[in-house]
Amino acid sequence: MIDGIILVGGVERRSETTFRGFNPATGTAVGPAFSEASAQDVADACACAAECAEAFANSTPAQRSAFLDAVGEDIQALGDVLIETAMAESGLPRARLEGERIRTVNQLGMFAAEIREGVWLDIAIDRALPERAPPRPDLRRLNVPLGPVAVFGASNFPLAFSVAGGDTASALAAGCPVVVKGHPAHPGTGELVARAVAAAVARCQLPKGVFSYLPGRSNELGAALVADPRIKAVGFTGSRGGGLALVAIAQQRAEPIPVYAEMSSVNPVVLMPQALEDDAEALGRGFAGSLTLGAGQFCTNPGLVFAVEAPGLDRFISKASSAISETPPAVMLSAGIHEAYRTGVATREQCGAARKLASGTAGEGVRGSAALFETSASEFLANPQLAHELFGAASLVVRCDDLGELAAALQSLEGQLTATIHLRAGDEQLAQPIVAALRNKAGRLLANGWPTGVEVSRAMVHGGPFPATSDSRTTSVGTLAMARFLRPICLQDMPAALLPPPVRDDNPWSVPQRIS
Amino acid sequence: MIDGIILVGGVERRSETTFRGFNPATGTAVGPAFSEASAQDVADACACAAECAEAFANSTPAQRSAFLDAVGEDIQALGDVLIETAMAESGLPRARLEGERIRTVNQLGMFAAEIREGVWLDIAIDRALPERAPPRPDLRRLNVPLGPVAVFGASNFPLAFSVAGGDTASALAAGCPVVVKGHPAHPGTGELVARAVAAAVARCQLPKGVFSYLPGRSNELGAALVADPRIKAVGFTGSRGGGLALVAIAQQRAEPIPVYAEMSSVNPVVLMPQALEDDAEALGRGFAGSLTLGAGQFCTNPGLVFAVEAPGLDRFISKASSAISETPPAVMLSAGIHEAYRTGVATREQCGAARKLASGTAGEGVRGSAALFETSASEFLANPQLAHELFGAASLVVRCDDLGELAAALQSLEGQLTATIHLRAGDEQLAQPIVAALRNKAGRLLANGWPTGVEVSRAMVHGGPFPATSDSRTTSVGTLAMARFLRPICLQDMPAALLPPPVRDDNPWSVPQRIS
Repeated sequence: MIDGIILVGGVERRSETTFRGFNPATGTAVGPAFSEASAQDVADACACAAECAEAFANSTPAQRSAFLDAVGEDIQALGDVLIETAMAESGLPRARLEGERIRTVNQLGMFAAEIREGVWLDIAIDRALPERAPPRPDLRRLNVPLGPVAVFGASNFPLAFSVAGGDTASALAAGCPVVVKGHPAHPGTGELVARAVAAAVARCQLPKGVFSYLPGRSNELGAALVADPRIKAVGFTGSRGGGLALVAIAQQRAEPIPVYAEMSSVNPVVLMPQALEDDAEALGRGFAGSLTLGAGQFCTNPGLVFAVEAPGLDRFISKASSAISETPPAVMLSAGIHEAYRTGVATREQCGAARKLASGTAGEGVRGSAALFETSASEFLANPQLAHELFGAASLVVRCDDLGELAAALQSLEGQLTATIHLRAGDEQLAQPIVAALRNKAGRLLANGWPTGVEVSRAMVHGGPFPATSDSRTTSVGTLAMARFLRPICLQDMPAALLPPPVRDDNPWSVPQRIS
Repeated sequence: MIDGIILVGGVERRSETTFRGFNPATGTAVGPAFSEASAQDVADACACAAECAEAFANSTPAQRSAFLDAVGEDIQALGDVLIETAMAESGLPRARLEGERIRTVNQLGMFAAEIREGVWLDIAIDRALPERAPPRPDLRRLNVPLGPVAVFGASNFPLAFSVAGGDTASALAAGCPVVVKGHPAHPGTGELVARAVAAAVARCQLPKGVFSYLPGRSNELGAALVADPRIKAVGFTGSRGGGLALVAIAQQRAEPIPVYAEMSSVNPVVLMPQALEDDAEALGRGFAGSLTLGAGQFCTNPGLVFAVEAPGLDRFISKASSAISETPPAVMLSAGIHEAYRTGVATREQCGAARKLASGTAGEGVRGSAALFETSASEFLANPQLAHELFGAASLVVRCDDLGELAAALQSLEGQLTATIHLRAGDEQLAQPIVAALRNKAGRLLANGWPTGVEVSRAMVHGGPFPATSDSRTTSVGTLAMARFLRPICLQDMPAALLPPPVRDDNPWSVPQRIS
């Protein structure tokens, strides 16, 4: 069932160049030798995606939603081999991966439901006004798919942000064929899911070019995919360096295309005075839990905490420190990620601008130990590197003299996926400017919660100003993620026989039409 | 009333560096010496825009719509001096500019009405599900303004795409302060409108930083504006070179920002066989009228015509040629635009790949003569420069052997603002693949009309794939233009006292809320 294949428009291929998957916990290879996709595979996958783009764009919401549901069913049908393969390749625990599988399947179902409703088409119809001077023509606007989309999955979500994750699901929902560049950190997991998607394509009798899967380790593979003129948009979740490299390639094309890169975020948390006074210990426990969840390998991990000096802050730090000290080391996703984390923590220990408050029990191999630091607002402002993402379970408490200094520290931050405020009724008045400042920095603003845990729903925004993403007007989670792969067109005085069904007067798909 | 001033947040400034406005018809200077804005003016305008961005973002739809209506009233109140100034600076005739003024005022009114309706907020509310495992938080999504916007007006629309044109109106409607870089081709017109906007800002008691006006000729001025870290998005209408230069500056910033550049389009027109057989002469007349309107200085000017060889095509060409031959020369917008047009026509005459069919009567000074060329589909495909925009009243008929060759020629085109098909009932079946091909190339697809004339309404799309614009997902005309300056945010479990009014349960603005 895992053969190390490439899938080009439903057809299996193999290459002589191969790479291995690794179990990060043991450092040993797992699975077969995996084929590395070539430039020819990229070209062929893009060609068959482009060939069927028109047909797939014209598929009905019923056809596309049945297809997305079928993908979900086929992923479920993979059974425990999917979970075991992902556990071996990622070091993530069973419960986490079982939850991620539910999330992935539900996400496909959410898009299936959303496309049937038709709000995503954003239809506006301005009827002809022949008596007006000058006459107004008949104008009908709707959203249409951009064309073939390249998807780069994330190492930290082998299911929900990978081969059939949010980018793929939203692009397919929008009517765009998808070419996935498989992540080399979980090639067996990727192949299993890719086979499930291809099986659903066949079962739903869609054109085979709707989905291709190109595993590989080389940066050249991804670069060739983004540079291919048939690709019309890119979804990416990963590092800032990786995202910016793809943006640069996309901008240098003869036809530049949008790259939706979800990159880096430190997810500031503000603890307001009354909240600290009332609940410092509970906040400390909650914070440590969110920080160390999944070895801290979440893009919404709370990497910065801001609070004003007070006894409550010391109690918060004390509780958080003891919780972190008791946290066992956790296997990280790969040796590379572990090494970057270890180096980042060591650099912070030695930088002189932050003091270590606590660390988790020491770990062996690729096991990462949680780490908590503190600094002052003035040191924080003087050392911009303290505001950079340190991927893993490390966080920094910024002690502020007053709320003015706290606001200034927030003002210095780059764009974020999330920003959190903990407050009680007595804090609300003082919180107004803090909330306003956080709102300008983030895509999602939470009160009295923790940023890890991203609901997959209509109102979710998993995006934010640069460098959280490359396009703050978008989200990679939730129904709005589809909008990334759509563009509006207007049809003027088009005969009924040449109108797409959703903008016809008889509205055969029963979608919302805003008519004036 | 025209003093050659700079307006920084409502305050008049003057500089020692000045430039002159010119009457293109006479080549003589008109108006006073105009102040050239400096790097300091850019910095100050951006600073006061940033300072009031939060307050303006929080203004109510009622306040913002009253403001937009006030801008329209103040432009109307300028009276005939506005029309006469614009006539002198642009060479455009009175009727055209009076129509453009109506369009500009109505456009402001359209956005005023749209923001009161609230659809642009795109609100989604996912209510908390505390019983679910895991519990779902309360999630509320809405659109918020990006922040200060830089607007670069177009030379060919001194009112509708300039100081208070579509980019400015849509940015203000979205709640973004605007800093306009005034176009040096119509500095007196620009100053009059800028004063009207500033007066409306004051009358509506909005913060003065909501609007600034920076006239100037230098590219450095525009570059400094786009590079300023307080600017969060850019609207531009002009040349491909100018647009791409701004995109490059925006991408090189520490925080890259979106540039909405409407750049170049040749607006292909397809004449189907039955339409030619039935109505060749009427089509020839209609085409010549659209081509020569306003000296051909429209971004939607029909610069390419595709048809299959037939007697009807010869009749079309004959009628179009005679209409063009009778067209008097027309004053162009500036000496530079005239020179580029003259050179472009001469290059085409000498390129060997196209034959001249007709030209308008010869003109003096900056008066441009219309020009019609023809070529074969194979020559067209072999000479990509024939598909490039030639700004002015020049067009090229591409004679195709059959519809297959015609489709291949369409396939070779870059992205366009518009694409047009003329067809009769007997053409509909054959038109299906042609319409599909055109749809992939353009933002607006017209049947049996001419692309010049862009309705300002909800269903309009004035955008299209690169290089028509730098972002095919957007439009610069119609209510959807606001979306360029908005981003979604999600508020999670936020106390009611800290929620923005439109996502509150009591919905004080009575805006649509999609609740689940």
